[in-house]
Amino acid sequence: MKIPEGVYVAAVPVRVGYIDTDRGQIVHHATYLRYLELSRVEYLRERGVDYRRFEQEQALSMPVVEARIRYRSAAQFDDLLTVKTWIAQVNRAKLRFDSGIYRGSELLTTAEITLCCIRSPEQRIVSMPEAIIALGSPAAGE
Amino acid sequence: MKIPEGVYVAAVPVRVGYIDTDRGQIVHHATYLRYLELSRVEYLRERGVDYRRFEQEQALSMPVVEARIRYRSAAQFDDLLTVKTWIAQVNRAKLRFDSGIYRGSELLTTAEITLCCIRSPEQRIVSMPEAIIALGSPAAGE
Amino acid sequence: MKIPEGVYVAAVPVRVGYIDTDRGQIVHHATYLRYLELSRVEYLRERGVDYRRFEQEQALSMPVVEARIRYRSAAQFDDLLTVKTWIAQVNRAKLRFDSGIYRGSELLTTAEITLCCIRSPEQRIVSMPEAIIALGSPAAGE
Amino acid sequence: MKIPEGVYVAAVPVRVGYIDTDRGQIVHHATYLRYLELSRVEYLRERGVDYRRFEQEQALSMPVVEARIRYRSAAQFDDLLTVKTWIAQVNRAKLRFDSGIYRGSELLTTAEITLCCIRSPEQRIVSMPEAIIALGSPAAGE
Repeated sequence: MKIPEGVYVAAVPVRVGYIDTDRGQIVHHATYLRYLELSRVEYLRERGVDYRRFEQEQALSMPVVEARIRYRSAAQFDDLLTVKTWIAQVNRAKLRFDSGIYRGSELLTTAEITLCCIRSPEQRIVSMPEAIIALGSPAAGE
Repeated sequence: MKIPEGVYVAAVPVRVGYIDTDRGQIVHHATYLRYLELSRVEYLRERGVDYRRFEQEQALSMPVVEARIRYRSAAQFDDLLTVKTWIAQVNRAKLRFDSGIYRGSELLTTAEITLCCIRSPEQRIVSMPEAIIALGSPAAGE
Repeated sequence: MKIPEGVYVAAVPVRVGYIDTDRGQIVHHATYLRYLELSRVEYLRERGVDYRRFEQEQALSMPVVEARIRYRSAAQFDDLLTVKTWIAQVNRAKLRFDSGIYRGSELLTTAEITLCCIRSPEQRIVSMPEAIIALGSPAAGE
Repeated sequence: MKIPEGVYVAAVPVRVGYIDTDRGQIVHHATYLRYLELSRVEYLRERGVDYRRFEQEQALSMPVVEARIRYRSAAQFDDLLTVKTWIAQVNRAKLRFDSGIYRGSELLTTAEITLCCIRSPEQRIVSMPEAIIALGSPAAGE
C-alpha cells in the first residue's frame, strides 16, 4: 500500500489499551476498526469537517459499507501506533479512506474503508455532500 | 450474595468469546458489563417487558446510574457461563438488578446495577413506569 | 454471495446487545467481527475441533490475516441474527471462512475472513494442521 | 468525591469515539472502564512504573477485584474528557485507584477501582510489590 502523491494524510497517534488485546497476547483484530474510525474523525477535523456537527446539523451520517483489512504484524499492549489515513476515492456515491497503521516505521496493518451517506431519520441513501466530495481535490495551499 | 427468597430469577447462558478476553488470558473486567446488560434484557423479556419496544414506543430509556462489581474468579475463553439476575429493589426513583455470574456451581462475579428512567429526547429523569415497579412484587403464580 | 454446494454450513444464532449498537442507532460495524469470530468457534466445535483445546494443547493459534466485510443492511438492537459460516478455502498456508449474517431471510452482511496458523510462543507461521485441512473435504456422511 | 490533599493526580485526556456510544446516543456505561484503565496505565507511567514491563519482567499482573462507578451525566461522541486518577489506598493486599471523569469542569463520572496482585502463570495472589506500595506515600519533591 503506497500513499498516493499529493494527497492529504492525517497521522493520528493511538496508544494500545489493555482492553484492546486478547488472550493471544496481541491486539484483537476487531480493535483496528476502532483505531481506523478514530483516525477518520481526526482526518475530517483536520480538513475542516466536524463530524459530530455534520451528523447533528445536517441529519446526515456516513456508515461503513465495506471494510477490508490486511493484518501483517500484530500490535501489542501499550504500543504507540500511528494511523495514517487519506482519501483514496470520493464521488457522489461513496467515500473511501485508505489507512496504514504503523509502529514506528513498521507497517502493521493496511485498510480500505468505504462509506456511503444516508439521511436520518429515514436512513435513505443520498448523495455525498459537496463539502465531502471537495476533500478529494487537494485544495491549493494545503 | 444470596438470592432473596421468592424473587424471580432469570438464568441466562453466555458463551465467552475470544474477543472478550485480554492478554492476561482471562475475560476483561469490562466484558462482564456486557453479560450483565444482556441478562437484564432477557430478565425483562421473561417478565413480559420487551425493552426495545419499551424504548421505542414510550420514548423512555433506563440508563445505568451506578454499577458495583466484585470479581472473585476469572472466566476464561469458551466458558459457558450462567448469569442469574433478579430485582433487588425498585421504586419510582430507581431499579436495582443484582446478579451472580456462575461457571457451573462456581460463583465468579457478583454485581449490583442501578438504573433510573429518562424520557427522550430531552433526557429528563422521570418516574419509573408502573409496569416496571410492578416487577418488584412477585406476581401470583410466578 | 452464494453458499457453495456440498459444504458444511454452521448456522449460529446471535442476539444483538445494546452495547453492540452506536449512536447511529444501528449495530456498530466492528461488532460484526465479534459475531463472525463466535460463529467460527462454533463451526469448529460442530466439526469436532475444540478451539480452546487446539490453542492450549498444540500451542497453535489461528490469527486473522485478512478480513473483508460488506455491509448491506444494518442490524438493530435485540435482533435475533443467524450467522451462516462455511469454509471457502483451506490449504497449508491459510484457512478462509465465508459468512452471511441474516435477519430472518434477509442477508445483512457478508464476510470473508482469512486465518493463518502460528506456533506459540515464538509466533512463527507454520503449516495448517492436517485436522484443519481435512475440514475442507466434506467427510462422507456429513 | 473530593481529591484528597497532597496526592499525586494524573490527568489523562480521552477523546470519545463513535464506537464508544450506544443507541441511547450517549457513551455506553461499560466504555468508562476503558477510559479508567487507560488512565491507570498513564498514572503508573507518570510515577515511573511501566505496566507492560511490570507484567513481562516480574511475571506479575494486577487484575481488577472490585469496580464501583457512579454515572452522573453522560459523555457524548467526540467529547474531549479528562480522567483524573489518584491512589486512594494501597497496602500489601490491594491497590485502590479513585477517578473522576470530567468534561471541562463538569464531573460526569466517579469511580473506585480496586486491584490485587497475582503471579503468573499460577495466577496466585501475592503481596503488592514494594514499588507499588511506595506510590502511596507522596515522594518528597513530587
